Amino acid sequence: MIHRSKAKELKARALDLFDRASIHLAPEEKSRIEPVDFGLGDPDREGAQVFTFVQTDRYAAKVIALLPGQTLPEHWHPRVEDDPGKQETVRVAWGTLYLVGEGIATPMRAAIPAGKNAVYTLRHEQILGPAGSRTFDPGEKHWFQAGPEGAVVYSFSSVARDVLDRFTDPGIQRVTRIEED
Amino acid sequence: MIHRSKAKELKARALDLFDRASIHLAPEEKSRIEPVDFGLGDPDREGAQVFTFVQTDRYAAKVIALLPGQTLPEHWHPRVEDDPGKQETVRVAWGTLYLVGEGIATPMRAAIPAGKNAVYTLRHEQILGPAGSRTFDPGEKHWFQAGPEGAVVYSFSSVARDVLDRFTDPGIQRVTRIEED
Repeated sequence: MIHRSKAKELKARALDLFDRASIHLAPEEKSRIEPVDFGLGDPDREGAQVFTFVQTDRYAAKVIALLPGQTLPEHWHPRVEDDPGKQETVRVAWGTLYLVGEGIATPMRAAIPAGKNAVYTLRHEQILGPAGSRTFDPGEKHWFQAGPEGAVVYSFSSVARDVLDRFTDPGIQRVTRIEED
Repeated sequence: MIHRSKAKELKARALDLFDRASIHLAPEEKSRIEPVDFGLGDPDREGAQVFTFVQTDRYAAKVIALLPGQTLPEHWHPRVEDDPGKQETVRVAWGTLYLVGEGIATPMRAAIPAGKNAVYTLRHEQILGPAGSRTFDPGEKHWFQAGPEGAVVYSFSSVARDVLDRFTDPGIQRVTRIEED
């Protein structure tokens, strides 16, 4: 749960990051930035701010603002009925992204949130700057953390059904509740 | 056909437009900018410069640089076997785009290339600035012209098979040949 005042702050910080990336939002689009806390209630630590450029039943394009050090938790995109699962390409527009995926353990700049070793199982890191990109096939696990200035990341994909994403952390709920202060 | 020296000039001008839009390309990506003349041999007038962020068998994300006044000819995306046809969302990143689609005739800022009235049949214009966007369903005709400073436009879509696009102008060939000077 995020209080309304906190949601407002997160949207403003996301908008500032989008500005730095020269990604323009129309005035009526600004209110559609979604602060996400993954149901954990500590969005500065584990969360994301998402703006959806477009979402149809065939493809999606989004842009994600991550605050300095903010972590987007480990997840994957499962098969959903006749959809083999979301295939997704992330591409950094601005800042630095620590992208952690499947593979042999590497040195890591990303810091696993305290006490969460068990629900961040991947240890293979790539450090991406602007223009750095990576495509994930359905079922491929990944998590992200922004560098010290934050990051702005495009997400291009096949049809997105975010509420059906699967997370390693059983405490996560993909739908974020916003409550009055 | 575009001579190699002209292709080089078009790529450099596209790169300058991408810079203005703060869209970063990695050094190895810069050579992958595609100048397109639609087989007409006059790319400053009718053409486009395209950079493909990603293309899979499920979705595509591209960014198109249009030079000042450059026109991307009237076309549509047909059904291809079991694909109902490309669905495409364009979104302006920088500059001004005159987007001409189906609908009742409007006043037009876009100027139809001289002598080409018969192969530009649409007369319904929207003027889009940064953050302006529009989604085209399969089969829906459209053409674009950049404003006086040029334009940089994202294209998010279902699977793209550009060589199968259909154009109103029978003189068009989607594959651009680059020839030695």
